[in-house]
Amino acid sequence: MQFDSLDDIRSFCRDLPDGDASAAEAATQRQQALTKPSGSLGRLEELAIWLARWRRRDIPRLDRVTIAVFAGNHGVAARGVSAYPQAVTEQMVANFAGGGAAINQIAKLAGAGLMVVPIELNRPTRDFTVAPAMDADEFLNAVDVGYRAVPTDSDLLAVGEMGIANTTTAATLCTALLGGGAARWAGRGTGVDDAGLARKRAAIETALDFHRAILGDPLAVAAALGGRELAAIAGAILAARRYRVPVLLDGFVATAAIVPLARLNAGILDHCRAGHVSAESGHRALLAELGLDPLLDLNMRLGEASGAGVAILLLRAALVCHAGMATFAEAGVSGAD
Amino acid sequence: MQFDSLDDIRSFCRDLPDGDASAAEAATQRQQALTKPSGSLGRLEELAIWLARWRRRDIPRLDRVTIAVFAGNHGVAARGVSAYPQAVTEQMVANFAGGGAAINQIAKLAGAGLMVVPIELNRPTRDFTVAPAMDADEFLNAVDVGYRAVPTDSDLLAVGEMGIANTTTAATLCTALLGGGAARWAGRGTGVDDAGLARKRAAIETALDFHRAILGDPLAVAAALGGRELAAIAGAILAARRYRVPVLLDGFVATAAIVPLARLNAGILDHCRAGHVSAESGHRALLAELGLDPLLDLNMRLGEASGAGVAILLLRAALVCHAGMATFAEAGVSGAD
Repeated sequence: MQFDSLDDIRSFCRDLPDGDASAAEAATQRQQALTKPSGSLGRLEELAIWLARWRRRDIPRLDRVTIAVFAGNHGVAARGVSAYPQAVTEQMVANFAGGGAAINQIAKLAGAGLMVVPIELNRPTRDFTVAPAMDADEFLNAVDVGYRAVPTDSDLLAVGEMGIANTTTAATLCTALLGGGAARWAGRGTGVDDAGLARKRAAIETALDFHRAILGDPLAVAAALGGRELAAIAGAILAARRYRVPVLLDGFVATAAIVPLARLNAGILDHCRAGHVSAESGHRALLAELGLDPLLDLNMRLGEASGAGVAILLLRAALVCHAGMATFAEAGVSGAD
Repeated sequence: MQFDSLDDIRSFCRDLPDGDASAAEAATQRQQALTKPSGSLGRLEELAIWLARWRRRDIPRLDRVTIAVFAGNHGVAARGVSAYPQAVTEQMVANFAGGGAAINQIAKLAGAGLMVVPIELNRPTRDFTVAPAMDADEFLNAVDVGYRAVPTDSDLLAVGEMGIANTTTAATLCTALLGGGAARWAGRGTGVDDAGLARKRAAIETALDFHRAILGDPLAVAAALGGRELAAIAGAILAARRYRVPVLLDGFVATAAIVPLARLNAGILDHCRAGHVSAESGHRALLAELGLDPLLDLNMRLGEASGAGVAILLLRAALVCHAGMATFAEAGVSGAD
């Protein structure tokens, strides 16, 4: 395994690999020479420069784009926190395999390879209102699944998830690590009614009370109050950093998965961008806490990397302009007065 | 010509062609059957239904997508309102022809045909601070250029523009037709400094004073205070309505071009969506006035249909999901409890 202990993760996070500042500088210079008023492509310029930094070339490419969707089941589902039965996690994994889900269509459109990784669906995490969801070994195994899933030569990784009840898990992580109370982070997920939302908030409060002794330790929280697919996303983000692969985060759950790492070192966010802000109520607050400015705001709340997948299209737009546009000199266009 | 008089346009706008409510209803039903929580694709669902309405089929296609960029020159440029010399309009048209501009790259990525239509660049409109920019015949000719540019079998039209000084023209139209004073609508365009911005505001105020007798007539304003590329965009929007082609508006200038029509009949906006909100300061206020919710907010301010062009990618994402996803029944996925 890449990480044999929680300390191995802590150690990696203390000294994160960096991008290439000179490639970013060269990309910045190129943006200023292209036939447009300086800065007029807005975030498309920033994205091209960010890709240059992490892919370490002034004109980066998006030849190999990977979408990784991790799936897990959650003991807390027994608390009646979701509108759907737990069986839907596995049914949706089958739907991904059959090509019928939204992310299948989006991946194809975006020219991305889709990797779906179910993690022990027949062994849900324990209900964290009464026990640790995972012990350290279970957590590290899930991290490892995510770490090993990332192709080392990827040009871009989009991470997403599937797991009935996992907005409860995500909200619990946020409440534990960012504060503000359960009401700040618990939303309607796939569409629970008022009674379901009340059960969700109660489950979060019960869990925080049960685990109050470990709330100061982000990785202990990620194990005891997390989920396998969230741990795998954290592992994938660590692998991406190792290989300097830029990452697009999906929605509330995928973003919550990075919170334990961000509590260890906020620099983990440098190779990540938020693909979108979801309609799930806690996501906007979470992005603000992390200082992430989402690329899209389309009222989506599906998960399965769908928002990050659509955002790949924006990165492609950024790069075709960066690579293909003429400079003022090449095109014989006059500059500003 | 399609419109021989301003009254012909008024007459068309009184009785606008409508979309197909039954196709929209069938598309809505389909969205509710697909393997996702109801509404979880957010605006992608709304966009698929909107395309169904205007293309009049429950599973619409985007086989023929047209990006039309109209270019014109503006007498008001003599007032020192732009950071770039007027020659840049023609130079950029040459850059479009040579494939070196941002919109060339975006059009290719989006699978769209790019049509660039320069309109009498060697004959700028008159400086509207001292004369009518166009007389009625000149205006109608420009409308006709736009009208005729739209392929009748298009599945989607994105409209944009190029024209040094045309954010001044757009701001003048907005000030004349929507009120609030020049400061509300005049922004930095391609990047004028404070002195340039002051000249821009002064030009707008002078123009409104000079033309105060006609400010109650939206089409008279569009002629006297407008520009040829804005008139052509209006013509293209009218043609698109005639042929039930949905339209993506680009930035501040392209959106300002529809204001005279919207003042005649706000229903003209029904077949239009705002591709993005630009960084040009008046655009957000203009979209709010028109009740348009932009698809993208990427701090872009380039014009040339670049924001609308990127938004085409979102429509493609909406349609691949709409057409390609499995239903709950097809995939054997359980519904909500």
